[in-house]
Amino acid sequence: MMKNRPLILVVNDDGLDSPGIKVLGNIMREIGDVVVVAPSLNRSGLSHAMTLDKDIYIQSVNANHNEYMCSGTPVDCVKIAFNKILPRKPDLCVSGINHGSNHSVNSLYSGTLHGAMEGSIQGVPSISFSHLSYSYKTSLNNLKPIIKTICSQILKHKIPNGVTLNINFPDINFKQIKGIRICKQAPGYWVEDFQITKKTKQKTYYRLAGQFNSVSKMKNTDSWLLANQYISILPVSIYPDFSVDNQKFKYLENDF
Amino acid sequence: MMKNRPLILVVNDDGLDSPGIKVLGNIMREIGDVVVVAPSLNRSGLSHAMTLDKDIYIQSVNANHNEYMCSGTPVDCVKIAFNKILPRKPDLCVSGINHGSNHSVNSLYSGTLHGAMEGSIQGVPSISFSHLSYSYKTSLNNLKPIIKTICSQILKHKIPNGVTLNINFPDINFKQIKGIRICKQAPGYWVEDFQITKKTKQKTYYRLAGQFNSVSKMKNTDSWLLANQYISILPVSIYPDFSVDNQKFKYLENDF
Repeated sequence: MMKNRPLILVVNDDGLDSPGIKVLGNIMREIGDVVVVAPSLNRSGLSHAMTLDKDIYIQSVNANHNEYMCSGTPVDCVKIAFNKILPRKPDLCVSGINHGSNHSVNSLYSGTLHGAMEGSIQGVPSISFSHLSYSYKTSLNNLKPIIKTICSQILKHKIPNGVTLNINFPDINFKQIKGIRICKQAPGYWVEDFQITKKTKQKTYYRLAGQFNSVSKMKNTDSWLLANQYISILPVSIYPDFSVDNQKFKYLENDF
Repeated sequence: MMKNRPLILVVNDDGLDSPGIKVLGNIMREIGDVVVVAPSLNRSGLSHAMTLDKDIYIQSVNANHNEYMCSGTPVDCVKIAFNKILPRKPDLCVSGINHGSNHSVNSLYSGTLHGAMEGSIQGVPSISFSHLSYSYKTSLNNLKPIIKTICSQILKHKIPNGVTLNINFPDINFKQIKGIRICKQAPGYWVEDFQITKKTKQKTYYRLAGQFNSVSKMKNTDSWLLANQYISILPVSIYPDFSVDNQKFKYLENDF
């Protein structure tokens, strides 16, 4: 790899076949040298889980593109990338682009965000990207220049230690997006709906489903911004009792 | 169940056979009516993971003691308890007692803490208990009056919305414990050590191991308190950009 180009780790939570990681990998290859490590299965909703009870494998899938799959969680992907795959500590870790929202309380469950948070724990500026559309068919190409600009800015200015950026894109026509805003996390909650799928003498089987409820109409939260045609950037602390100074990220704001 | 007794949900991350959950269940039965829901397998290190890709089951194990096992994660246990097991919203959710530390950055990975955090998300005062000894043989009986007092205080005073208490006990002779302190989270990191366990033509298999490094000598952090013979209480926010006011929990402090 060339020495003067940044080294970028790309991860996600739903594997190498996800259109989101292909778009993100291609954008990053315009900026630097890229290594991609993604789960071998869909690992959505796995938060910061790591695999302690069994072995995990890595497999080179596309050597020309430095693409690997890993049988572990998104956090495992990042840990094993740092320990066994990357030639040196990277300059940036990006996760996504996730097909589905990671705003409000979803940040707790998100494998996409927590993959990036593990990058922050490893001491590298890290960013999570999610699009509010769950469809693999939604075109993400229009987002390329925005993501490229944000990542170039972060490579230049870095991110304060212990902070990860959680970026969400609204599910609207690209031309309707008004700009980029730094925000606070909106309150919200899931109403779970466990459907019985099978019943034996001893066990009752359920499948988890549910509906997300945004409870906040508060301006400048991530949920509010996304509902009002903005891209939201939530600075998230990897320390649960630490308050982030959002002013440090105001330079990322933009009007389109 | 009697109407004037509090209803308490007890969970953990390593199952009904763990001595820690037996001790915790017994303490809670002195305070209120108890329902226990624990994973059917050891689910350590699963953080806030939930099961989206397959069914999970619940099985009544000890009907007299309202004990259930669930094939899901600690977070699944709490969600399904609220939705399918508990007769009403409980007054308290406690998780543990975990055999092993959950201070410093371990709070991110801990299934024990995140089980309790899911209780907070469901709107119930929730507490996670961990003992620094990993041995199932360590006697936890001496901790009973302390845990009983803390839980009784929390049942009386509640916990501000969105905050979970992460309590760790030092691994020292009980008589040497100096007291209880509210704290901030200490920085710290794991140095991972992936050992190759198998190699095939395409895949290399690893087992994750590692060593935890506490980087802080800063007083009144959880790691410092535990190394200095104190029980640490870390108020943790379920919102990653929200700062907790520790002053609200000072009444829990105590000198022995």
